[in-house]
Amino acid sequence: MRNLTRAEVKNASLSQLKKMCDDLREEIFRTVSACGGHLSSNLGAVELTVALHRVFDFPRDKVVFDVGHQCYTHKLLSGRATLFHTLRKEGGISGFPKREESEYDCYGTGHAGTAISAALGLAKARDLKGEDGEVIAVVGDGSFNNGLIYEALNSLKILDTRILIILNDNGMSISPTVGGTHEILEEMKGEAVPSEDVKLFERFGLTYMGVCNGNDLEELLPELDRAKEILKTKSVLLHVVTRKGQGYAFSENAPAETHGMSPHPSVKQEYSHALGEELIALAEKDARVVAVTAAMTDSLGLRPFFEKFPSRAFDVGICEEHASVLCAALAAGGMRPYYAVYSTFLQRSFDEIVHDICGQNLPVTFCIDRAGITGEDGETHQGVFDLSFLAPIPEITVAIPKDIGEFRAMLRASLDCRGPLVIRYPRAGTEGEVNPLEMGTFEVLHSTMSDIAVLAAGERCLCLARELLKKAENEGFSFTLVNARFLKPLDSMLLASLKQKYIVTLEDNVLIGGLGDAIARFYREDGRIVRSFGYADAFIPHGESSALAKKYGLDGERVFETLREFYARG
Amino acid sequence: MRNLTRAEVKNASLSQLKKMCDDLREEIFRTVSACGGHLSSNLGAVELTVALHRVFDFPRDKVVFDVGHQCYTHKLLSGRATLFHTLRKEGGISGFPKREESEYDCYGTGHAGTAISAALGLAKARDLKGEDGEVIAVVGDGSFNNGLIYEALNSLKILDTRILIILNDNGMSISPTVGGTHEILEEMKGEAVPSEDVKLFERFGLTYMGVCNGNDLEELLPELDRAKEILKTKSVLLHVVTRKGQGYAFSENAPAETHGMSPHPSVKQEYSHALGEELIALAEKDARVVAVTAAMTDSLGLRPFFEKFPSRAFDVGICEEHASVLCAALAAGGMRPYYAVYSTFLQRSFDEIVHDICGQNLPVTFCIDRAGITGEDGETHQGVFDLSFLAPIPEITVAIPKDIGEFRAMLRASLDCRGPLVIRYPRAGTEGEVNPLEMGTFEVLHSTMSDIAVLAAGERCLCLARELLKKAENEGFSFTLVNARFLKPLDSMLLASLKQKYIVTLEDNVLIGGLGDAIARFYREDGRIVRSFGYADAFIPHGESSALAKKYGLDGERVFETLREFYARG
Repeated sequence: MRNLTRAEVKNASLSQLKKMCDDLREEIFRTVSACGGHLSSNLGAVELTVALHRVFDFPRDKVVFDVGHQCYTHKLLSGRATLFHTLRKEGGISGFPKREESEYDCYGTGHAGTAISAALGLAKARDLKGEDGEVIAVVGDGSFNNGLIYEALNSLKILDTRILIILNDNGMSISPTVGGTHEILEEMKGEAVPSEDVKLFERFGLTYMGVCNGNDLEELLPELDRAKEILKTKSVLLHVVTRKGQGYAFSENAPAETHGMSPHPSVKQEYSHALGEELIALAEKDARVVAVTAAMTDSLGLRPFFEKFPSRAFDVGICEEHASVLCAALAAGGMRPYYAVYSTFLQRSFDEIVHDICGQNLPVTFCIDRAGITGEDGETHQGVFDLSFLAPIPEITVAIPKDIGEFRAMLRASLDCRGPLVIRYPRAGTEGEVNPLEMGTFEVLHSTMSDIAVLAAGERCLCLARELLKKAENEGFSFTLVNARFLKPLDSMLLASLKQKYIVTLEDNVLIGGLGDAIARFYREDGRIVRSFGYADAFIPHGESSALAKKYGLDGERVFETLREFYARG
Repeated sequence: MRNLTRAEVKNASLSQLKKMCDDLREEIFRTVSACGGHLSSNLGAVELTVALHRVFDFPRDKVVFDVGHQCYTHKLLSGRATLFHTLRKEGGISGFPKREESEYDCYGTGHAGTAISAALGLAKARDLKGEDGEVIAVVGDGSFNNGLIYEALNSLKILDTRILIILNDNGMSISPTVGGTHEILEEMKGEAVPSEDVKLFERFGLTYMGVCNGNDLEELLPELDRAKEILKTKSVLLHVVTRKGQGYAFSENAPAETHGMSPHPSVKQEYSHALGEELIALAEKDARVVAVTAAMTDSLGLRPFFEKFPSRAFDVGICEEHASVLCAALAAGGMRPYYAVYSTFLQRSFDEIVHDICGQNLPVTFCIDRAGITGEDGETHQGVFDLSFLAPIPEITVAIPKDIGEFRAMLRASLDCRGPLVIRYPRAGTEGEVNPLEMGTFEVLHSTMSDIAVLAAGERCLCLARELLKKAENEGFSFTLVNARFLKPLDSMLLASLKQKYIVTLEDNVLIGGLGDAIARFYREDGRIVRSFGYADAFIPHGESSALAKKYGLDGERVFETLREFYARG
């Protein structure tokens, strides 16, 4: 698709605009089919974004997209159409708004609920500098459950500035939106006359406008004009209803499945599938087992559990903090909660993990999916910090299965764990055997008399280690290979018993504060050489995950050079 | 005060109950005067708590106190009156609810906003186990600004259980409560007939009751009875108005000043005072400087700034996450925000520091007060994790001033910092000189030819190091002393140039993931011996902070033994 000029959008007739929407939708569909990405959320927001570009003047005006998974049309309309085929590829266009990519991306997003706070900050900065320009936050109804949104609404009057909030209501988070706010919004949509609930928004200092069909330019454009007029003196919330996946029948009918799409469906097994199976088995034998998710029932593999045990399964919406406290209290009340969440979103629960769960040593099990480099979603979605931020927390057990079989074994052992447990794993892997294990024990996978031991954690690193072992043996040397499957507690007995002088650690996490640091701390002052491989101290952008892993620190050749060097030193 | 039996509370006449309240208030006042603690919040909640004990049956019924700084009466009425004189002393009664202290403390708190989530979890566990008993959350109006509260309210219908929420509305956070929710609550209090806003609560599945005088037993008891009746079938929110500091004139008139009281007013200077002064100076010379706080204007020293630059100072209420995103966006909009917060509450912003601030490399300066062991408030208020959870975040600069003078110098240098900066410091210290400094540089305080170097960070550790230096010199040896005032970036030039074979590190933080680990990582494989002192891998309870520091790892004698050992090894 060619780059459209601002004038083309500004001067187009209505029918030309509609044609433009068709073209954009086609371009999005074609590109996501080739590159993967967020399909249904972007298809739903085409008309809305075209209307914003028609009515406002970017980049003088600014738009913050909450989560950011609906920004493709904005990118296509702001000089990035000719590059759009590079979407999510290394060095190409990011799937999320990114300040360094374009001046049209005024604020980067990826996690839910930040847009209103961000819009307020940008608007306040504008006011203080005496500048012009409007600031718009586009927020999905799923994010409207998030506490951050409420904190931002609460401060509208305090900050005394003007923003336009567009509530893009498609009734979906990744899973269907849930909760009290959702019910209020649903009711507002059903009423001809604005309901009493409108007052809720007005109390916070917003003029409420809506409900308006966000996929219909004829309805949307005049409403946006009106909103812009009111915005001269007051903050506005414009409630638009869009259809996730609009214009693409399969996506309209299966918005959750087409929310995020991979370019090449994995031939590997998914850990999430095993999670669903194992949790059902645990729940069948232990009535204390309950499952909690923050709007990701499907992508975490919990759908079968929710169907089998509806009264013991809770989707609380995009509320990661609440989910964690809820789990803490369920555990305090005698239950055994399993909270499944992506590594990057676990960051939202950091304080609750410290304060509520570990601080009270409660038996909550975290199932952390998408740990390590996740690839195409980029900086905001890599799961490379979890080992580091979990390691300093007292009372926690942190497990890193080497394959799905071991993941199953860890889940089966989890009921015997009397305190907080985290199991972190990538999206996909190989099945492997299910061997019973004891918490806090490492596993020797290959034992030699060589002076080198490789301690690796997680499937990516153990695969790499096994490759290197083969390569070493081809070159005539070998090393002891240990599955360092617990960051915490470390298997101090095994570590103490290792005779090797050279220790190499491998982890799918940033180096700072991770497994390598923990093992090096154990071996301080004992004369061993510990060299660690993991990710550099940098935000890792989007790209293919193996290539990124190699580039940012898990480079087989570099590791092998170290092994060879240690072998030569003897 | 003697322990009262349940029967005494249940059978007392109204006038006896009133007398009981007087006695409790006197006991609280006397104890806080001797031991320090939260005065005004506890004085305000005496009648409310007595009424709860009258109407409900603890511990079968359960009460979760949000933040927990209003739990003294509950402790006094649940078998802990005779021990109450040990309040906040090591091994004594905690100033916050604590599960291990009593079965009457069903859920531990300390940070704001967790109580409704926790009550829901406890209630759901009760339901699933088929047990009896009511669950009550007591939440201040200040916490009602917090996003967690909203996330919990949003999930009331999802969880389909019954709880009683008592909104204890005294119009105060630590500073006066602010924001849209506060205005709504204020209006509700002013109206004879329940206002339209009541519907907000009803939409979430709550029966609203109020407004009721929470300091008047005659009004409160029948309302609580009624709430208990409704609670049989539905969740209830009872809105009570209390007076913070009730019954103690000075505290009533100065609730912010008497919110938290120290037993022995510090003879030291407070870092917060310097923060206020320096920020004013920065703001005078640079129009981009703005200050943000989450309901702690006074305790962080920002009052003078707020008075001098009201349009550039923002108290957003107890909304640490929103405060961080707001700062990110203010910085993205060209401002230079300074966000002041306690170390323990910074944990709430972890995801926003990663995702919004460092992920976009924005020049936000965090002024982190109450870092290190803080003492009497216990586990939930120690600031001993910040170095560890900040270290793995790319782009961040982490500074640790050795005294208030250096803190001033860091603030003065902060405007030249082009990315995120954290300055972490304890509550009180000594003034010291203000010498200009460059970010990322260490400072050699004492240089010798000895084979030992001590690298210490922060005022507590540098004081200890100086004492040990004196002691060593008395014993006829010495060491090089370095002010390791940046965790990140480390001063690699200086570290590389050190000739010493033995390195001792000291930090006011847990050992895992802190300064010692960073320096040991730097020196890996170079043959030096690095031994680190900091806090053990444990939650540090309440007590006197120097005693705790010593007990949990910063023990001068133990450090000195190491120095002596290294000296002997030569």
